[in-house]
Amino acid sequence: MPTVKLIEYDDAGPDVRAIYDDIKATRKTEYINNFWKALANHPPTLARVWRDLKEVMAPGRLDPLTKEMIAIAVSATTGCAYCINSHTAAAKKLGMDNEMLGELMAVVAMFNTTNKLAEGYQVEPDVFPPLE
Amino acid sequence: MPTVKLIEYDDAGPDVRAIYDDIKATRKTEYINNFWKALANHPPTLARVWRDLKEVMAPGRLDPLTKEMIAIAVSATTGCAYCINSHTAAAKKLGMDNEMLGELMAVVAMFNTTNKLAEGYQVEPDVFPPLE
Amino acid sequence: MPTVKLIEYDDAGPDVRAIYDDIKATRKTEYINNFWKALANHPPTLARVWRDLKEVMAPGRLDPLTKEMIAIAVSATTGCAYCINSHTAAAKKLGMDNEMLGELMAVVAMFNTTNKLAEGYQVEPDVFPPLE
Amino acid sequence: MPTVKLIEYDDAGPDVRAIYDDIKATRKTEYINNFWKALANHPPTLARVWRDLKEVMAPGRLDPLTKEMIAIAVSATTGCAYCINSHTAAAKKLGMDNEMLGELMAVVAMFNTTNKLAEGYQVEPDVFPPLE
Amino acid sequence: MPTVKLIEYDDAGPDVRAIYDDIKATRKTEYINNFWKALANHPPTLARVWRDLKEVMAPGRLDPLTKEMIAIAVSATTGCAYCINSHTAAAKKLGMDNEMLGELMAVVAMFNTTNKLAEGYQVEPDVFPPLE
Amino acid sequence: MPTVKLIEYDDAGPDVRAIYDDIKATRKTEYINNFWKALANHPPTLARVWRDLKEVMAPGRLDPLTKEMIAIAVSATTGCAYCINSHTAAAKKLGMDNEMLGELMAVVAMFNTTNKLAEGYQVEPDVFPPLE
Repeated sequence: MPTVKLIEYDDAGPDVRAIYDDIKATRKTEYINNFWKALANHPPTLARVWRDLKEVMAPGRLDPLTKEMIAIAVSATTGCAYCINSHTAAAKKLGMDNEMLGELMAVVAMFNTTNKLAEGYQVEPDVFPPLE
Repeated sequence: MPTVKLIEYDDAGPDVRAIYDDIKATRKTEYINNFWKALANHPPTLARVWRDLKEVMAPGRLDPLTKEMIAIAVSATTGCAYCINSHTAAAKKLGMDNEMLGELMAVVAMFNTTNKLAEGYQVEPDVFPPLE
Repeated sequence: MPTVKLIEYDDAGPDVRAIYDDIKATRKTEYINNFWKALANHPPTLARVWRDLKEVMAPGRLDPLTKEMIAIAVSATTGCAYCINSHTAAAKKLGMDNEMLGELMAVVAMFNTTNKLAEGYQVEPDVFPPLE
Repeated sequence: MPTVKLIEYDDAGPDVRAIYDDIKATRKTEYINNFWKALANHPPTLARVWRDLKEVMAPGRLDPLTKEMIAIAVSATTGCAYCINSHTAAAKKLGMDNEMLGELMAVVAMFNTTNKLAEGYQVEPDVFPPLE
Repeated sequence: MPTVKLIEYDDAGPDVRAIYDDIKATRKTEYINNFWKALANHPPTLARVWRDLKEVMAPGRLDPLTKEMIAIAVSATTGCAYCINSHTAAAKKLGMDNEMLGELMAVVAMFNTTNKLAEGYQVEPDVFPPLE
Repeated sequence: MPTVKLIEYDDAGPDVRAIYDDIKATRKTEYINNFWKALANHPPTLARVWRDLKEVMAPGRLDPLTKEMIAIAVSATTGCAYCINSHTAAAKKLGMDNEMLGELMAVVAMFNTTNKLAEGYQVEPDVFPPLE
């Protein structure tokens, strides 16, 4: 049960409509996810998050599917139901199949386990030089 | 400050030594991370975690570097210092440079933000079909 | 789906009824939230949590609306759906409007992002003196 | 690096001293943990937390060692270094040995893994009746 | 809404059926939880998690009810709805009643509070020797 | 132990120097926090996070001290040591004293407790209308 109303295109002001239009054009779809319709309750946040997302998801050193799988890994770790659903759907569009998701889940589960063991025993870090 | 003593090779029983030997052979190194030396306080856990890790990190649909970057994403999200250090070092060995780490961090930070916005507004999931 | 039955006033023993009465009197409402009806399965916990809550939410150096907004910040960060809903409703009663919630969400999202970047790079704390 | 000064007995006011005295008498030790010395910066919080802790840890349906092991499980899951150290030491005093800690860690690690798999796949709860 | 289809016995391959059969035999029930039906989308993960769970939950130094209560403590701390439901039901089968659950919840709540206070003030660990 | 080198002003390129200059001018200080020196390893992330932070912390409906206290609440809840230290120092500069921090900690601790109780019992949300 969302704590705010979802803002539909027809009820939105011009600033929000401009961002909805950009989302549709960028993603080549008429569908606006509920996430954006909730953020539209605070237009500066909608604008900032959409701008950041475009920057972060733009072509770079990591490919888009890897980025979506990292989004799934983060969301499974924090337990955000909305996010798990939307990133799994997005990764599927980019080619992730059931077996890849299974392997991803196995990796996420594995390292959540080792994280808790390292914390539970308070293991001191091995000494490695910083990246350069 | 670890809550248990780290078990060195020379102080270990034959079961633990056999696993240390397998770690060294598999990783082609003489170095045993502190993590394993802590787990060695409970040999069945050491055996299970090492066996699982070998299975999960074996060649599959995701490449080893992607798996290590997912390990960094999980560890940054949970805030496990030991794990961040060791997975960053492991990813570096597999070719991750400073720019790739920066892009990875940007993705992790981005989706931790959107996770909290989706939760904070209690946005209801969009409807997507399950993967097949 | 709660794991315990909610205890209604008419089914409650005298100790639980006394606390329900105090909740109603303190909050000037006939409504008892589901949270208390669940805790009533273990009366000592109901008593302790209600007593603590009254103490912590009493007039002090932080005003009640600020305290409710901090409750939202905590609940969005942990992802507790029940808590987000109830604290958002409580803050609304104290005067929080949609724009203030938006600004609050932006702050919560911002610092969840910087938290993960600080952890992800394992940045060492700057040196500051303790508060006095 | 604590963000507040630790309040030593000799620097404490009478309210704080009374609680320190009760901690010493209850625990049959002269040692006051750093945790209490930090909380003493806000005497009402020191009083409330100590009172709650005495209530919660008092003899009941769960024995004291089980309660301390649950404290370790919670602290390993949240990754609180201070808490892991102090609860491991407390459980040791109550008879937990290295093998029991290993088994506890294995259980904690196991269920952190299954938690993430259940979340990652968004598995819907099986239907069980509530406890009565 | 799960992100994968649940695999029923009749739709499963021989590897998955063998594990389902072992689950039924081990637990003396015809019921397969949704969790396993989701994991069956990736048979190696199903096999690994079931094998690990049998090892970790086998008779040892901690009794089965204590292990299930620790599973509840972990799941309440991470906020995994599926897990809380299933472990509460499992603990009930092993004899946990409403009062024990209440006491368990009180302990979990208590130490989540003290965890946050220890973190919030950045209290430095007291010095204890490691377990031996 | 940071996983990257901290980039000092004299070793930075012109893009990073421009941001360092803006940080110094905005905050009226010569001091650049370690956080920014770590982010400078990936200049686009440094630029984005600094730009976002200026936007989010600008005068609005919530005052700067409230925003810093929310930052402390988030950081204590996630357990980010770096963040707790820096936001506590920042809030102190804005007028937070020891008593206010104590009250803030009490609120954070209280709602982390109630969050876990609401999750642990899987209490269903009370029905409230969304904000408008």
